[in-house]
Amino acid sequence: MAGNRKIIYRGKIIELYLEDVTLPNGVKAELEIVRHPGGAAVVALDNDIRVCLLRQYRHVAGGWMWELPAGKLDPGEPPHATARRELEEEAGLRASHWEPLGSIVSSPGVFTEIVHLFLARNLVPVPANTEEHELIEVHWVPFTEALARAQAGEITDAKTVIGLFRAHKIVTGI
Amino acid sequence: MAGNRKIIYRGKIIELYLEDVTLPNGVKAELEIVRHPGGAAVVALDNDIRVCLLRQYRHVAGGWMWELPAGKLDPGEPPHATARRELEEEAGLRASHWEPLGSIVSSPGVFTEIVHLFLARNLVPVPANTEEHELIEVHWVPFTEALARAQAGEITDAKTVIGLFRAHKIVTGI
Repeated sequence: MAGNRKIIYRGKIIELYLEDVTLPNGVKAELEIVRHPGGAAVVALDNDIRVCLLRQYRHVAGGWMWELPAGKLDPGEPPHATARRELEEEAGLRASHWEPLGSIVSSPGVFTEIVHLFLARNLVPVPANTEEHELIEVHWVPFTEALARAQAGEITDAKTVIGLFRAHKIVTGI
Repeated sequence: MAGNRKIIYRGKIIELYLEDVTLPNGVKAELEIVRHPGGAAVVALDNDIRVCLLRQYRHVAGGWMWELPAGKLDPGEPPHATARRELEEEAGLRASHWEPLGSIVSSPGVFTEIVHLFLARNLVPVPANTEEHELIEVHWVPFTEALARAQAGEITDAKTVIGLFRAHKIVTGI
């Protein structure tokens, strides 16, 4: 049961608050909660079964990471619209075939972020439009190679590993 | 390049700060950063190739979730020690065979959490020791069923989906 909330910080991306809750066993606790608007990420496959992976600079994670095209939901924006927008802005791609790959909860102890995953096919190039604080290189990697790197732990971004894993069933038809 | 840091909040689990950074392209930005101590999670398999999954109440995620036994690193604690401790405390299990399954970055835009994943086998029961704010039921699920549920999107916790995916290669030997 939700109780009293004390807002600590409202920022550009996140909001931090403390909440007094009563758990289903009657225990009361004060939780630290980081509210995030949620996001969408895209497994974009070309006709050669290569996947679009971004090499992206992430100060918070200490360097360059391999990630799917992805981004935060704008206020009121449905996840599939975010997915389409980010695929255009970050990767310069538009897709005519879309399938949902479910969602993930990034870190359910303190962080409200849910990331919605999608598979995109039938791609055509469009102008990309990255923001100046986004450092992004677009790469094309054979899907089976990307999947193997995610399984071996060489790709560590959670949404990217899970997007590839969930897309595998559809890509291989097994 | 890291620059000036302004601490907004230091809590029990997380710390929130704003940091002025200079990105590799020379652009300056102020980032909202949520520091988390990181964690460890365990794919524990019994001799019938069933995996230990917890049904856990997560206020932040809005209800009950399926998760691997897992927890935060105590200060100075190496990840494999956290993995052993949490497997005992949450699931009441001790394992004599351990293998690393790499790590994941939960949400590299704003959140520093890294979760270290492990496979544990040769299990023996020990007394569990959950805290009163932890609502946990221990379940045993055939590994292939758990993996299918993670791939189909029925299991949504990121560390759990990825732990199962990475363990699959070892469990099946392919």
